[in-house]
Amino acid sequence: MTTVIKNGTIVTHDLTYAADVLIDDGKIVEIGQNLTGDETLDATGCYVMPGGIDPHTHLEMPFMGTYSADDFESGTRAALAGGTTMVVDFALPSPGQGLLDALKMWDNKSTRAHCDYSFHMAVTWWGEQVFDEMETVVKDRGINTFKHFMAYKGALMVQDDEMYASFQRLSELGAIALVHAENGDVVADLSAKLLADGNTGPEGHAYSRPPQVEGEATNRAIMIADMAGVPLYVVHTSCEESHEAIRRARQQGKRVWGEPLIQHLTLDESEYFNADWDHAARRVMSPPFRNKRHQDSLWAGLQSGSLSVVATDHCAFTTAQKRTGVGDFTKIPNGTGGLEDRMPMLWTHGVATGRLTPNEFVAVTSTNIAKILNCYPRKGAVLVGADADLVVWDPQKEKTITADAQQSAIDYNVFEGQYVTGLPRYTLSRGRVMFADGEMRGQEGHGQFVKRAPKGEVNKALSSWKALTAPRPVERSGIPASGV
Amino acid sequence: MTTVIKNGTIVTHDLTYAADVLIDDGKIVEIGQNLTGDETLDATGCYVMPGGIDPHTHLEMPFMGTYSADDFESGTRAALAGGTTMVVDFALPSPGQGLLDALKMWDNKSTRAHCDYSFHMAVTWWGEQVFDEMETVVKDRGINTFKHFMAYKGALMVQDDEMYASFQRLSELGAIALVHAENGDVVADLSAKLLADGNTGPEGHAYSRPPQVEGEATNRAIMIADMAGVPLYVVHTSCEESHEAIRRARQQGKRVWGEPLIQHLTLDESEYFNADWDHAARRVMSPPFRNKRHQDSLWAGLQSGSLSVVATDHCAFTTAQKRTGVGDFTKIPNGTGGLEDRMPMLWTHGVATGRLTPNEFVAVTSTNIAKILNCYPRKGAVLVGADADLVVWDPQKEKTITADAQQSAIDYNVFEGQYVTGLPRYTLSRGRVMFADGEMRGQEGHGQFVKRAPKGEVNKALSSWKALTAPRPVERSGIPASGV
Amino acid sequence: MTTVIKNGTIVTHDLTYAADVLIDDGKIVEIGQNLTGDETLDATGCYVMPGGIDPHTHLEMPFMGTYSADDFESGTRAALAGGTTMVVDFALPSPGQGLLDALKMWDNKSTRAHCDYSFHMAVTWWGEQVFDEMETVVKDRGINTFKHFMAYKGALMVQDDEMYASFQRLSELGAIALVHAENGDVVADLSAKLLADGNTGPEGHAYSRPPQVEGEATNRAIMIADMAGVPLYVVHTSCEESHEAIRRARQQGKRVWGEPLIQHLTLDESEYFNADWDHAARRVMSPPFRNKRHQDSLWAGLQSGSLSVVATDHCAFTTAQKRTGVGDFTKIPNGTGGLEDRMPMLWTHGVATGRLTPNEFVAVTSTNIAKILNCYPRKGAVLVGADADLVVWDPQKEKTITADAQQSAIDYNVFEGQYVTGLPRYTLSRGRVMFADGEMRGQEGHGQFVKRAPKGEVNKALSSWKALTAPRPVERSGIPASGV
Amino acid sequence: MTTVIKNGTIVTHDLTYAADVLIDDGKIVEIGQNLTGDETLDATGCYVMPGGIDPHTHLEMPFMGTYSADDFESGTRAALAGGTTMVVDFALPSPGQGLLDALKMWDNKSTRAHCDYSFHMAVTWWGEQVFDEMETVVKDRGINTFKHFMAYKGALMVQDDEMYASFQRLSELGAIALVHAENGDVVADLSAKLLADGNTGPEGHAYSRPPQVEGEATNRAIMIADMAGVPLYVVHTSCEESHEAIRRARQQGKRVWGEPLIQHLTLDESEYFNADWDHAARRVMSPPFRNKRHQDSLWAGLQSGSLSVVATDHCAFTTAQKRTGVGDFTKIPNGTGGLEDRMPMLWTHGVATGRLTPNEFVAVTSTNIAKILNCYPRKGAVLVGADADLVVWDPQKEKTITADAQQSAIDYNVFEGQYVTGLPRYTLSRGRVMFADGEMRGQEGHGQFVKRAPKGEVNKALSSWKALTAPRPVERSGIPASGV
Repeated sequence: MTTVIKNGTIVTHDLTYAADVLIDDGKIVEIGQNLTGDETLDATGCYVMPGGIDPHTHLEMPFMGTYSADDFESGTRAALAGGTTMVVDFALPSPGQGLLDALKMWDNKSTRAHCDYSFHMAVTWWGEQVFDEMETVVKDRGINTFKHFMAYKGALMVQDDEMYASFQRLSELGAIALVHAENGDVVADLSAKLLADGNTGPEGHAYSRPPQVEGEATNRAIMIADMAGVPLYVVHTSCEESHEAIRRARQQGKRVWGEPLIQHLTLDESEYFNADWDHAARRVMSPPFRNKRHQDSLWAGLQSGSLSVVATDHCAFTTAQKRTGVGDFTKIPNGTGGLEDRMPMLWTHGVATGRLTPNEFVAVTSTNIAKILNCYPRKGAVLVGADADLVVWDPQKEKTITADAQQSAIDYNVFEGQYVTGLPRYTLSRGRVMFADGEMRGQEGHGQFVKRAPKGEVNKALSSWKALTAPRPVERSGIPASGV
Repeated sequence: MTTVIKNGTIVTHDLTYAADVLIDDGKIVEIGQNLTGDETLDATGCYVMPGGIDPHTHLEMPFMGTYSADDFESGTRAALAGGTTMVVDFALPSPGQGLLDALKMWDNKSTRAHCDYSFHMAVTWWGEQVFDEMETVVKDRGINTFKHFMAYKGALMVQDDEMYASFQRLSELGAIALVHAENGDVVADLSAKLLADGNTGPEGHAYSRPPQVEGEATNRAIMIADMAGVPLYVVHTSCEESHEAIRRARQQGKRVWGEPLIQHLTLDESEYFNADWDHAARRVMSPPFRNKRHQDSLWAGLQSGSLSVVATDHCAFTTAQKRTGVGDFTKIPNGTGGLEDRMPMLWTHGVATGRLTPNEFVAVTSTNIAKILNCYPRKGAVLVGADADLVVWDPQKEKTITADAQQSAIDYNVFEGQYVTGLPRYTLSRGRVMFADGEMRGQEGHGQFVKRAPKGEVNKALSSWKALTAPRPVERSGIPASGV
Repeated sequence: MTTVIKNGTIVTHDLTYAADVLIDDGKIVEIGQNLTGDETLDATGCYVMPGGIDPHTHLEMPFMGTYSADDFESGTRAALAGGTTMVVDFALPSPGQGLLDALKMWDNKSTRAHCDYSFHMAVTWWGEQVFDEMETVVKDRGINTFKHFMAYKGALMVQDDEMYASFQRLSELGAIALVHAENGDVVADLSAKLLADGNTGPEGHAYSRPPQVEGEATNRAIMIADMAGVPLYVVHTSCEESHEAIRRARQQGKRVWGEPLIQHLTLDESEYFNADWDHAARRVMSPPFRNKRHQDSLWAGLQSGSLSVVATDHCAFTTAQKRTGVGDFTKIPNGTGGLEDRMPMLWTHGVATGRLTPNEFVAVTSTNIAKILNCYPRKGAVLVGADADLVVWDPQKEKTITADAQQSAIDYNVFEGQYVTGLPRYTLSRGRVMFADGEMRGQEGHGQFVKRAPKGEVNKALSSWKALTAPRPVERSGIPASGV
Repeated sequence: MTTVIKNGTIVTHDLTYAADVLIDDGKIVEIGQNLTGDETLDATGCYVMPGGIDPHTHLEMPFMGTYSADDFESGTRAALAGGTTMVVDFALPSPGQGLLDALKMWDNKSTRAHCDYSFHMAVTWWGEQVFDEMETVVKDRGINTFKHFMAYKGALMVQDDEMYASFQRLSELGAIALVHAENGDVVADLSAKLLADGNTGPEGHAYSRPPQVEGEATNRAIMIADMAGVPLYVVHTSCEESHEAIRRARQQGKRVWGEPLIQHLTLDESEYFNADWDHAARRVMSPPFRNKRHQDSLWAGLQSGSLSVVATDHCAFTTAQKRTGVGDFTKIPNGTGGLEDRMPMLWTHGVATGRLTPNEFVAVTSTNIAKILNCYPRKGAVLVGADADLVVWDPQKEKTITADAQQSAIDYNVFEGQYVTGLPRYTLSRGRVMFADGEMRGQEGHGQFVKRAPKGEVNKALSSWKALTAPRPVERSGIPASGV
């Protein structure tokens, strides 16, 4: 059975043109005028765009004996309802656990996914087993991105020498380093001091992770990546300090990308000062929301290209779970939702205002990350041969965001009450209509794992440059006898 | 008659894949496996890329009673021999001359072109006629880019208020502002002082146009463009000072692009200190060559995206013409060649070293400028329906650049002796093979004018933002009576 | 008759120590323990500091047929009441008027001054007479600072080539260039557009002079000063854009100073959006007030040393005068008061908060500018031999600023209602107590003109460096015959 | 017995004037005209300046079973011969050794000093004993500066959490944090990799400590200091990366100072590529010499005030000692001489060229550090009551630097062959002539320890600001019950 999307305007990261799209067996098979198929989707007045890719989710993430409330079922359902057709989650080994063993756990979690997905592998400790299994992860499992936590001391955090060792290994394997950039030592000490001073509420979380702490870690990760010769992707870039470090690195020709979240682009720190504890606690995530100065910086980064991707870090906890942290902000589970709202919020605040062109919208929600992850043009493209992960986007469609109407399993929404313009009419995953006119038509387990090969073009170029400029010994005759 | 390019690897600004390309009637009609056509071009071991676009040439440019030596015939011949399939020249009205009148003169010059071309319109004076004709130039003549000279005092230079008026007009028309950014007042005064101090040689030219003077003008043009709400394209960005101003603007979300020249990327100011007067004078262009610090800045700009396009400012004068300036460097005609060498030089110093990926090479030599000029994807793309302006690029082919073997009409080459790796095997203009295995097969007059529509996506987005943030009066009741 | 200040703590730009100060004949004659004199001033609990120097006032300035309301009598009275013991005003030649002729007019105005004063000479047009008289102004009249207006098109504004010519002349004479940095062409055009769009209220003034316009002009002036080899002092630096240009220049070793005003440090643009026309119009000055981002930048500049001096640009117009601009903001006289409030406001917001040390307070209110103007240590110091221009500062003394209680001749105060901590107990001008415990004891005409010699240490160093790095011709044999 | 310095020009950090200086009992007792004393030193044609203070020496430093060759005797002799009258050395506890115990060892070393000295205390490990003894070191021993090594992994290096804990302690005590800023983890790993790759020569040392590694650590230290609320002094700032981090911090109002060394200002990395192993090894120090880009940055920092002090890190090893590292650059003792050459080299390259004024020379060699260390105006001043640590500086005196003629105990000089202009005629330590017309008249043991009180003005201001802006809990009623 074939599907045709008719009467729409195709918008990709670099093209805008009127054409129909014909889909067969999950792939785009033709793009042109007056196409026909078994099923017809009307895109009159709409843009036909690559489905969104959210490279930063934590579905069913283990946390203190419980799990984040959205799993791959509800999470990917929310994604599709918001126009996102692929998510990339993080496989997180426990201390001492092997990478492959952790991947098995995530394989199990993801069987219920409605849309396609991939994994980043986290490096949460260092040892020979990790070193060895990295090769298997890259070559056999098709994962070319490895996350390192510079925060969460005593849990996920790795030290500089471990990070350097891992980055060197990634350089050899042609993979890409990811970092959660906050100085974990300082966060831990600030947190302890705040609690000791009676700053126990959710605002303490924000106090404990100021922009400087994120900027410092970003800067450090960049240096270590440069020394190791590996491209670096900085997740959840939330502030000018971190963005500045990324810009500075890029201005030196370094291969570094930054990923702001839709939350940091549109919400600010005043949320933590809300008199309602629940309101504040529901917004607790790391890094915390910042202020307008930082928001302006992030928007300009998307406009200028110094920041590349808009993600969510979707990691949803219920109010009940959040209340674990009453009396001690360090015990509030970190994370908010966002999968369903990322694209409408970005369209409303980005495209409708004129900050971004529609093409730039596609680039930062889909195509850029597909390129970085090395799954372009299978994903992130409207091209013949590409997966038919598509969203038919209606720029006139409006709604007020509310938890009552959301797909997510949690009982609130951090964007509650936001009025958005620009919503999906249809969302297709590999050719199948999963969301239509406000209705989910998903199918558990439809989603498939997306393998991604190492040694992309950027890795190759960087390796050439590093080889060309590598240290070389000075030729000397007559070296003196060793000393003292 | 159809042509097929077989066995090559297609490299565009965002894709690398093996496929054949079928051409009919000057257009790409199919891209796929195992294609056949009447004529077959073998691309084994080669990349099939969009032909280069050089957005900055001065062919047969009038100068002090003579003309630059390369006209549209020899100039476009040189272009094709180097893999470039489109040039954009500047129509330069004399003081008081109408825009349309000047365009007629450039129409006449360009009839002999071997490859497609377009024009930027220069605004060299200001008045009602210019204001009025700008609309015709945009709407009827298909020109959406207008150049302003901030240097060449007493000749082409315009004042700030004229530039602001012109930029506002461009904003209304949905066009783009271009600037030659050097402070003409200061250049004139420095030149006079240098001559008075006995600095009459070609190195005086470099002394008279230091990086600060370019950086200042770039910064000024950016501010004026921002006030007028028009996108800005800065031609021949040669130095860190200018690049810094561009980066700073982009970091504030401004729509500004910078264009380094291949000369500034690969040659340095030491050329002007050559003991051979001719050697030095042949390199006289504005801005002059800089040093390694500036080169590093420009390369990093291409890598990070803060600079967008590599051009040549091809404006070739013979040694005899250069000697007009013996005893007075201000009389040395400004300009060098480069059309034939831009792409091989950039490949050699950019891609072969690992500074740029092959995709980035295509972006900065072709696709980016096609988008900015709003002629993408007709130009700058390997897509069905696009003009078959293609280069079959052999990354292993090598040569030493020498004036003896060049297409250009002049008697020297500023890259003389440079060993390059990466050269065209075939260059096609609208499907016709114009250059093959080192042989020109050009045809005078084959080239056609390329119309470019106004109101591209960036213009539209910028206009929305400016409307949203426009000044609004404060509502007041009870304003006092006017005073004193 | 001698005066001794007893029991205080001397605070200078670099020292804090307990000592008495003995004054005779207008000079400090001894600093030490247990001094005695004919008159004793008790400084218990107080700091004994150099009197403030305000290098930026416009007293009795001609404007559209009237004059600014504070003349040298009321203006210097306000100064003394606020702890300031010297003002530097601007002699402004009319178009075509000679410098010496203008100076005579300012000599006449200043005869009633209560405290010492000096003049900056403004260069408001260019010609041989100006060139010639500059030497006399420097050598005979003891004025080493020359102001250039880059704004006020059609009135005071000079063009880039005039500015460059003047700067070169200053370099020869060993003097210092001052600039009012706003792009006058753009301000004029923006103003016209705003009026045409119905933005006629005082907020239109702020809209017409955005930070970019100031930043651009600052950057331009810096480049021109660098080319001319003259130190540059930028008056009323109000924004990050301008401060950034200054920082960038300083980071390149250039000799540039910036002067924020106390108004820009403590008041913001919201004042212009006040529903009361008079309230808004009274705050109209150029540059206008900015927002918190800019204020933070200015404070950090004072802390780090990238900004050097806090001034007022005191130019007071009555409400009646302000109302000239009802219906057309361009007709609102530009200027506010500040002379009486500068030091208490800076102490309150700077020292009491911990942003500045008391020594830094002295530096930015007095000593730095005395050094720049080359009248240190006669002024700006507590040293034996220095003029006894002193303030006995009570850090505990408090008041609410109000127009009712002020010395200034105008009917309002832009700081109305501000609660300040830190006020003068005594202010002495050349040893004479002019203000004591809230009472004026001034004497018209007590103030004397302060001559300032050219060729200070910074001028000398800069000249050496410029000579060392000056362009030099390449030695060539065999230059070809001149061309074509 | 009194001494008078006659006929000279006094040059301090902020004054230049002709006067005689009368000295009695080690103190300046009078400054004026026509003074007389028992002993007369003629300063005709000379500047009378505060003696230099070198805040960064390692005399008789233990290293791998031996000691640096210059001890307090020869080291302070070299200092005086070069116009330096005070040195500050580092007391370095072994792992687990108490601070007070280490101080005893340094007390013993310093008994032979010819000139006055002080100590910085190093924090080389962390524990309750260190925490407790810090208070004694500050309050009883008069040491307010504590050094932290971010490099030398496995030896002196401390971790981020230790550094943060120490910085907080310093904040409470009103002391100042010092850092050696290089990322020790990365240096260790780079070194191992270089050795493994056969890069065993002295140039390997430079390869192992690239500017990025220093910049990163500087940036990290600044963040940690900001979080702890303590002023930070960065020793041996050698590169733009580190300077940039310092500038950026200062531009945010942070209290950070940077200290370039005379070596980094005047020597470059080409020294390590010398074909003579000994030549290269003698220049091995950390950080290593850099290139011209970095030198320009450091000079501009001195000019603009973003860098504050010029030091030497004098730590002299003989060629024989250096040869310990033949075959393994990590075993080459780190350090060079410089005490005798700092001031002549800085005068020659700084003042004689016009980069610095004579006043700025005094500031960066003496007064600034005296203020930072809180021993001004006892040291670093020419004021009545100050210690008579003076240098009579002859700006015309010239020599070629050579190891043969030096005071230092080692057999070479890294400035060998440099021609300098500007040398001491006399150097006085507390009034006693220690060096006269090229002859040492020193006296072992003349030097005394200089106590320095905590809680200087900068500490006080910073503490006020941090208290004002400290996190405060949100007031909430109705906090929910703790969850899950």
